[in-house]
Amino acid sequence: MQYSYLENKKLEDAIYGYSEFLAPRIKQPETEMLPVTEAFGRITARACRALLSSPGYNACAMDGIAVKAEETFGATELTPVEIDKDRFRIVDTGDPVPEGFDAVAMIEDVSFDGERAVLYEAVGAWNNVRQIGEDLCREDIILPSYTKLTPAAIGALLAGGVTRVEVFKRIRAGVIPTGDELIPVGETPGNGEIIEFNSHIFRAALIEAGCEVNLYGIVRDKPELLKNALLKAAGENDIVLLNAGSSAGRDDYSKNAIDDIGEVFCHGIAIRPGKPAVLGVCGSTPVIGLPGYPVSALVVMEQVVFPVIELMTKNATRESVKAEATLSRKVTSSLKYQEFLRVKLGYIGEKLIASPIGRGAGAIASLAKADGVAVIPFDSEGLDTGESVEITLLRPLDEIRRSIIITGSHDPMLDVIGDILRRRTNFFLSSAHVGSMGGIMAMLRGEAHIAPIHLLDSGTGEYNVSYIEKYFKDGDVTLIKGVKRVQGILVREGNPKGIFSIADIAKKGVTYVNRQKGAGTRLLLDYLLEKAGLPPSAIYGYGNEEYTHTAVAAQIAGGNADAGLGIFAVSKIFGLGFIPIADEEYDFLIKTDMLGTPLIQAFLEALGSGELKSGLKEMGGYEF
Amino acid sequence: MQYSYLENKKLEDAIYGYSEFLAPRIKQPETEMLPVTEAFGRITARACRALLSSPGYNACAMDGIAVKAEETFGATELTPVEIDKDRFRIVDTGDPVPEGFDAVAMIEDVSFDGERAVLYEAVGAWNNVRQIGEDLCREDIILPSYTKLTPAAIGALLAGGVTRVEVFKRIRAGVIPTGDELIPVGETPGNGEIIEFNSHIFRAALIEAGCEVNLYGIVRDKPELLKNALLKAAGENDIVLLNAGSSAGRDDYSKNAIDDIGEVFCHGIAIRPGKPAVLGVCGSTPVIGLPGYPVSALVVMEQVVFPVIELMTKNATRESVKAEATLSRKVTSSLKYQEFLRVKLGYIGEKLIASPIGRGAGAIASLAKADGVAVIPFDSEGLDTGESVEITLLRPLDEIRRSIIITGSHDPMLDVIGDILRRRTNFFLSSAHVGSMGGIMAMLRGEAHIAPIHLLDSGTGEYNVSYIEKYFKDGDVTLIKGVKRVQGILVREGNPKGIFSIADIAKKGVTYVNRQKGAGTRLLLDYLLEKAGLPPSAIYGYGNEEYTHTAVAAQIAGGNADAGLGIFAVSKIFGLGFIPIADEEYDFLIKTDMLGTPLIQAFLEALGSGELKSGLKEMGGYEF
Repeated sequence: MQYSYLENKKLEDAIYGYSEFLAPRIKQPETEMLPVTEAFGRITARACRALLSSPGYNACAMDGIAVKAEETFGATELTPVEIDKDRFRIVDTGDPVPEGFDAVAMIEDVSFDGERAVLYEAVGAWNNVRQIGEDLCREDIILPSYTKLTPAAIGALLAGGVTRVEVFKRIRAGVIPTGDELIPVGETPGNGEIIEFNSHIFRAALIEAGCEVNLYGIVRDKPELLKNALLKAAGENDIVLLNAGSSAGRDDYSKNAIDDIGEVFCHGIAIRPGKPAVLGVCGSTPVIGLPGYPVSALVVMEQVVFPVIELMTKNATRESVKAEATLSRKVTSSLKYQEFLRVKLGYIGEKLIASPIGRGAGAIASLAKADGVAVIPFDSEGLDTGESVEITLLRPLDEIRRSIIITGSHDPMLDVIGDILRRRTNFFLSSAHVGSMGGIMAMLRGEAHIAPIHLLDSGTGEYNVSYIEKYFKDGDVTLIKGVKRVQGILVREGNPKGIFSIADIAKKGVTYVNRQKGAGTRLLLDYLLEKAGLPPSAIYGYGNEEYTHTAVAAQIAGGNADAGLGIFAVSKIFGLGFIPIADEEYDFLIKTDMLGTPLIQAFLEALGSGELKSGLKEMGGYEF
Repeated sequence: MQYSYLENKKLEDAIYGYSEFLAPRIKQPETEMLPVTEAFGRITARACRALLSSPGYNACAMDGIAVKAEETFGATELTPVEIDKDRFRIVDTGDPVPEGFDAVAMIEDVSFDGERAVLYEAVGAWNNVRQIGEDLCREDIILPSYTKLTPAAIGALLAGGVTRVEVFKRIRAGVIPTGDELIPVGETPGNGEIIEFNSHIFRAALIEAGCEVNLYGIVRDKPELLKNALLKAAGENDIVLLNAGSSAGRDDYSKNAIDDIGEVFCHGIAIRPGKPAVLGVCGSTPVIGLPGYPVSALVVMEQVVFPVIELMTKNATRESVKAEATLSRKVTSSLKYQEFLRVKLGYIGEKLIASPIGRGAGAIASLAKADGVAVIPFDSEGLDTGESVEITLLRPLDEIRRSIIITGSHDPMLDVIGDILRRRTNFFLSSAHVGSMGGIMAMLRGEAHIAPIHLLDSGTGEYNVSYIEKYFKDGDVTLIKGVKRVQGILVREGNPKGIFSIADIAKKGVTYVNRQKGAGTRLLLDYLLEKAGLPPSAIYGYGNEEYTHTAVAAQIAGGNADAGLGIFAVSKIFGLGFIPIADEEYDFLIKTDMLGTPLIQAFLEALGSGELKSGLKEMGGYEF
């Protein structure tokens, strides 16, 4: 049966079992001799002993005079001791203690009377002296085997007179991308073609983990080709990753290829995403089959491939840094899987908030935006809003503290403000597009610094103000005026369906693309439909929802829809027709008590900057 | 006044003030265009927008049949819908949705009746389809300026059709070592000479932080030479580090050189170690003078140099990972300084214990052994035993969890066992040499897994057992028999002072080197002195204490002392004479309830291994 997975092995069992399976099958990695100065980051293959003691002589640890300690005994402020000129020497820090002396008196404690030194304080034997071998003794083991050469370790070896060190060769990792739909980076994808970028993600992650990476060319979905490629790679590497295309049946190609020329230990791990991973061996080389979707593949890299490399090198490939965060949205999960969920993080006051990113396994953009990974355990049905969750950080907390959390209505100007902030300040902008109403809710829950909104009060014809009066009765928020922007109907180039008004989108043969519930643009549509006396059911595609203006425009440009509501700027980007419908006010809701903070001040400065104004003028459709 | 520091600036003030000082003086870093696939770890110089949408076509997200959603409406188990062969297409995951269709029904929900498909469940429009731009839309900002190219960021750029990216050139960091006493790596140090290893520590740390490093040759302590070297380096780099020799007055050379050809912002920061740091600028290049001792210099690197590089690149140079630990020893500190203390870490059960490492600023070995850094705040007089302290980790907690904490008597065999463990298992051995009594105390305080001891009961002539009966009345410890080793008097080669018995070390002209209080070897000496009827005051050098057998041997070999008590093995290493005095039992004290743990089992296996036996036979003086 093509689509069945053999197993649903728990992650710990899979890794433990796989390591036991590999132990008798794989070889000890090869070693090489390197100059210590060029061995940073490498791992010692044997214990390194000091060839010299450090310091190698008795070194003065202070500027002062070298003395014989017993000759200073009894010296005090009241009973100073005088020392003849041949019974002391003036010394500087680092000088060897001269022959016949065994201590240093600090220069501050000495005065001179002609050629004699006068001491007001006694010194004990070896005081203010760094004795031979104080730091390192000859033959001491400086570093045991399997120790990573940190900067300090390099210093210690050199101090001990060691200039060459036997280290393991870098782990050679081979990466084989497979799939009929893939084209190499640099080519332009046609219909049904996908740029093969996964292998470049893996390559960077493997380099970061200290490996030497061999990237192989794309292998088409033919069993013979795959087997040949695998055979070659297994001979040339210490570990091989097979990256299947994204089709559900593809992992079986990987599994069968490994099975044919080696052994499969397990196919199917109880993690999500990442379940169809294949763990095996070809000859003496571990081979791991990764799923095709990038998010799934990266979870398998993190949870399986790195632990295997750590077993081979006995060293951490990366530091896993954890933090406790509060979940901003309910997440459901299956009891049968351990689930890895990418999140965006932000501090609201002292509270670290984790917002799950869309879970599409194919979403490469979400990978790049993620600040951390939350784990939902094997036997959990999910986590509730407000629950505490442990996050493995992908970004330093220091940076997350400098993130301005914007949650609400989408406008491309947010990305422009984000870029201005990056260039001019040390702050980051982290935005989630959940619509204007979603922004208000996030502000009420205390999960955002700023909510951009454009909400039309159909009663008054006014924007935003009445919503604030309704939801923020305590008046603890301030509405900062943003921009006026023109909304309209986006249609295909040349307007082939002849759409000139809201009534036209209800015409037979017109497919509409809508925004999600809670979006200001969706409320605008509903208001316009009501005014025109049209029910939502009259609109084909009313239920087809997108989260941003750009996404609506992309649907129309790609031919999935004929019309959608959106701002002028995106029509320009996608070369669409634009029928203006309404001028609206896109404003920013901010907690009043945060207005004075550097975070918000930086945002307001970017909002008021000439650079933003000229950027928006370029994009078109905005007014100040 | 040569030795006075101009200032004692608080660290935050120094960094903030220095960044304000630098802002108008330094230049924007240069940029370059790189292939995205080669730009891992670099920082974007400008916002990167998507050139293509991803996916670029409507892609089937499941294997199944492509349909027109509206034609499936009403399908249920009881009322299946039949679809004619020209109204559906069989599709695989990743295939484009064929023209005229807008949804995919999963293969599991379809059966076939001749050429017609039978559907038991309706699908909505765009169900099981990854729509154009679902992940990324053309013109979306994928990454803003000053964003570090992580593996995922590289994937996102490539998915968006971006193949080249404008990034900042690597920060060029110049390192100039200075000092008359320094010799380059590879030369053998004579009396008063020090191997210049600091610059190689800095180089590795700077490479880790993403810099390109220019190492300059050693500059002697002549103002003109220093100024010329500085001028050249300032012209060739984006930041320059001047590493003074370790003499107290040396920092003034750095300060004066910077002052002469540039500007000094501050000289002297309220941190320990690291106080004499100099912050300045030459032309448009920041110049930082680091103190000569490696521990001091590395504190200035971590606390000043990296933050400055972070200001220049707006990105973290490293992740600082913190953990709470319990302090195992009292630490005093000055109210006037913020103190950075290197610690060793270990888990005893769930409790993370931090043991301060010797505070000698010159101790490179301590740098390599440190697991973390504790900070004692500016206005604190220190911290007490058992107090909680925040640690910045230098090593992953995962590794620290696998560390076997050995505290007690020193024997070189511990390093050999540590190396066996590293090679055969995934455990680390972390040993502190505090003497046998110190080991018993650490066990009582719950701060060690294992205490090696050799304590002679002068009443019974028996080793160890009576001490355990005295200190562990509850009997919750087990004594594991270790080795018999022979202790004796270590003397210089050829025994020039004619020392053949304990009585001889009291002879006129003989300098003794002792072990620290609490060491078993010290107790042995006291026992032998008492038996010989000699008071400690009869021994010249009785107060001269060392912490290990090796260190005692090094003192004798280096000519600082004529005799000391120690084991046979170290006499062999240092080519010393050896007069056997006593056979003693070197055993291991272990908490009984820990005996079954993998940690202790691994230790016991190494202790019983043939490899250890043959190693000790080679070293000599041991019996089993």
